[in-house]
Amino acid sequence: MRDKESLRWISERYFEQNGTHYQTLLTPPTPLQFSRLVHISRPVLIKGVKIAEDLTKLWTNDYLIDRMGERPISVAVTPNGRADAVTPYDGTHYFVEPLVEQMATSELLSSLSTAVSERSDIYYLQSQNGNVYRARSASLEEGPVSEFDSLKRDIPEEITWCSEALGLPPDAVNLWVGDSRSVTSVHSDPYENIYCVIRGKKIFTLFPPSEGWLLEEREYPHATYTRSSPSSDLKILPSGKTVRWSSIPEPDIYPPSGTHPIHIEVGAGDAIYLPAGWWHHVRQSGPTVIALNWWYDMEMSGMTWVMLSFLRGMHLEGDDNAEDDNL
Amino acid sequence: MRDKESLRWISERYFEQNGTHYQTLLTPPTPLQFSRLVHISRPVLIKGVKIAEDLTKLWTNDYLIDRMGERPISVAVTPNGRADAVTPYDGTHYFVEPLVEQMATSELLSSLSTAVSERSDIYYLQSQNGNVYRARSASLEEGPVSEFDSLKRDIPEEITWCSEALGLPPDAVNLWVGDSRSVTSVHSDPYENIYCVIRGKKIFTLFPPSEGWLLEEREYPHATYTRSSPSSDLKILPSGKTVRWSSIPEPDIYPPSGTHPIHIEVGAGDAIYLPAGWWHHVRQSGPTVIALNWWYDMEMSGMTWVMLSFLRGMHLEGDDNAEDDNL
Ligand SMILES: O=C(O)CCC(=O)C(=O)O
Ligand SMILES: O=C(O)CCC(=O)C(=O)O
Repeated sequence: MRDKESLRWISERYFEQNGTHYQTLLTPPTPLQFSRLVHISRPVLIKGVKIAEDLTKLWTNDYLIDRMGERPISVAVTPNGRADAVTPYDGTHYFVEPLVEQMATSELLSSLSTAVSERSDIYYLQSQNGNVYRARSASLEEGPVSEFDSLKRDIPEEITWCSEALGLPPDAVNLWVGDSRSVTSVHSDPYENIYCVIRGKKIFTLFPPSEGWLLEEREYPHATYTRSSPSSDLKILPSGKTVRWSSIPEPDIYPPSGTHPIHIEVGAGDAIYLPAGWWHHVRQSGPTVIALNWWYDMEMSGMTWVMLSFLRGMHLEGDDNAEDDNL
Repeated sequence: MRDKESLRWISERYFEQNGTHYQTLLTPPTPLQFSRLVHISRPVLIKGVKIAEDLTKLWTNDYLIDRMGERPISVAVTPNGRADAVTPYDGTHYFVEPLVEQMATSELLSSLSTAVSERSDIYYLQSQNGNVYRARSASLEEGPVSEFDSLKRDIPEEITWCSEALGLPPDAVNLWVGDSRSVTSVHSDPYENIYCVIRGKKIFTLFPPSEGWLLEEREYPHATYTRSSPSSDLKILPSGKTVRWSSIPEPDIYPPSGTHPIHIEVGAGDAIYLPAGWWHHVRQSGPTVIALNWWYDMEMSGMTWVMLSFLRGMHLEGDDNAEDDNL
C-alpha cells in the first residue's frame, strides 16, 4: 500500500532521532520537569517514588487480607493468563476478554503462583476501570464503586507532580495483582500513565506511537470466557461485537521487522512514566506481583491526538476492513 | 499524488480538533503554564508583558538616536518592502534576499514611512541573525557581534518564564524596526518564538504545521538585491544557490483552499507566542513599527521535529524536485 510509505518514513526518522534511549530519574521530577517530559513523550523510569516504596513495605499479604476481609473483589479468570488477548478459536482468531469472578482477597492471593484446582485457571486482578478511584466529570470522587474502599487510606488519589504538571486530577487509579503467568498483550491507551510497582517486577516492552502500524491492528471478533457452572471449564463465547487489536502475540520475543522495542524492568518501589499512545506489552515476574497506576487524560488540544490516530493508521480505515493481506 | 492523502487527512483532522481558536492571556504565564502551552503548541496572545510595556514608553526616536549615536547598523533594503520573498525576475521566480546597507539609526528612523530619495527604497531593520544577542554554544554571550550593544541595557537576555519552562536560554534575540511598507513572506522556523511589539502593530497570519503542505514549498533559485554604486537602482543578482520557500505570495489575503488562517494583531506592549513550525506571514501597521523577539531552540527529542519535517512534505522530497505540477 502506497500510503504506508508515510508511516514508514515517520517511524524510520523517529528512530534515527530518538533511538531506544530512555531516561532514568533517581528521584521524582518536579511538576515543571515532568511537564517537559510529557512534551518529549518518551518513557521514563522513575526511582525513589515514596508511595511505591512505602506500600512495598506496608502491603504484606497479611495486611491486605486483614484490611480487605471477606469483601468480594472482581478478578479476571483465564485458562492461560492472557486476558484481553487475541486467541485462536474455532478456526479463526478472537479478541477474548476474561471471565470476571468475585472472590475474597485471600482467595486471590493464595491462588497466585499455584495451580487453582485441576482446572489451573489463572487469576489476575486487572479490572483497570478505575478499580480504586474513578473520575466523575472533572473531579475525582470516591464513589461507592470501588471494591477497594478499605485500601484507599493507603492509596493517594493523585501523583502530585503529575497532577500539577498536567493541571488536572487522574481519570482513573487502578490496582493490579497477579503473578508471572499473566501477560498483558500489546496495546496503547490515550492516557499519560504513571505506573508504580509495589511487589515483584514488571517487564515492559514498549514501542513508540510511530511503530504502531507495524503492530498490525485489525478488527477481531469479540468473545468472553464463560463457564456454565462454577466447577466447569472455561469456554470461549463470541459476542457478535468486534474489537480493534494488535495481531502480534509476542512482540517482546518476536518484535516485527522495522520495530525497535524498548525493554524496561520496573522493580518494587519504582515507577514508569508511560506516555499516551505508546504501545506496551507487559510481563511480570515474582510469586505475587502488585502494582498501582494513575491514568491521566492526555492533552486533546494541539497535534498529539491527530498524530496518534494517524500513526495507528486510522486514515487507512476503509482499506483496513477491506482485505487483511493488503496491510 | 497519492501520498498527499496523508497530509490532507492530518490537516483536516487537526482543524476539526482545534479550529482557529487562540488563547489570550491577560498576564504572562508561569513557567509551568507556559510549558503546557508549548506542549499544546498553538499560538497565544500575551498581554501585560512588562518589558514590552516599559520599552513602549522608553524607546522614543530621540532616545534611540541618542543611545545608538552614529554607530552603523545593518538594514535590509528592497524596492518593495519584500525582503526574503519570492519575486518574479527574468521570466521566472527567484527567492530574493535584500541588499544590506549600513546606516545610522537616525537615517533608518527618518526613512520610515517616507520616500527615501527618488528611488523610494524601503528600509527594514530585520537582520534576525540574533542581532541583539546570539547564543555561543550553550550559553548566551554578549559577543562583539551586536550592532546594538548600547541598547542591551534595555533588552533582557531572556524571557524568564520561557527560559524556565524550556530549561534553556534563547538561541537569538532580534530587534526589528520598519514600517507598514515592509512585509515578511510566509515561512516557518524551528524555534519557539516570543515576539514582543514595542511600537506600532504587527498583524500575524498563522497556519498550523499541518497546513504547511498547502503553502506549496518549492526550490527557488536564490538571488540578492545589489546595486553597482550607492546612487544606482537595486538590481536582482542570481547567486546560483537554491532556497526552499512557500509559493503563496499573499496567504493573508488569498489563503490557499483547505487552509484556515488565524489572524492575530499584536499591539504595542503585547507579545505573541509563536510555536515552532507554525507558518507566519507578518504585516505591520504604524509609521514606525518596533519589535523584539526571543528565539528558543525547539525540543528535538520526541516526535515534534519528525512531525514538522513530515508535514512540510519532506518525505516527498524526491517528487518535489522532479516536476512542479505534480505537487
Ligand atoms: O500491568 C499490566 O498488566 C498492564 C498495565 C497496562 O496495560 C496499563 O497500565 O495501561
Ligand atoms: O516581524 C517580522 O517581520 C517577521 C517576524 C518573524 O518572521 C519571526 O519572528 O520569526
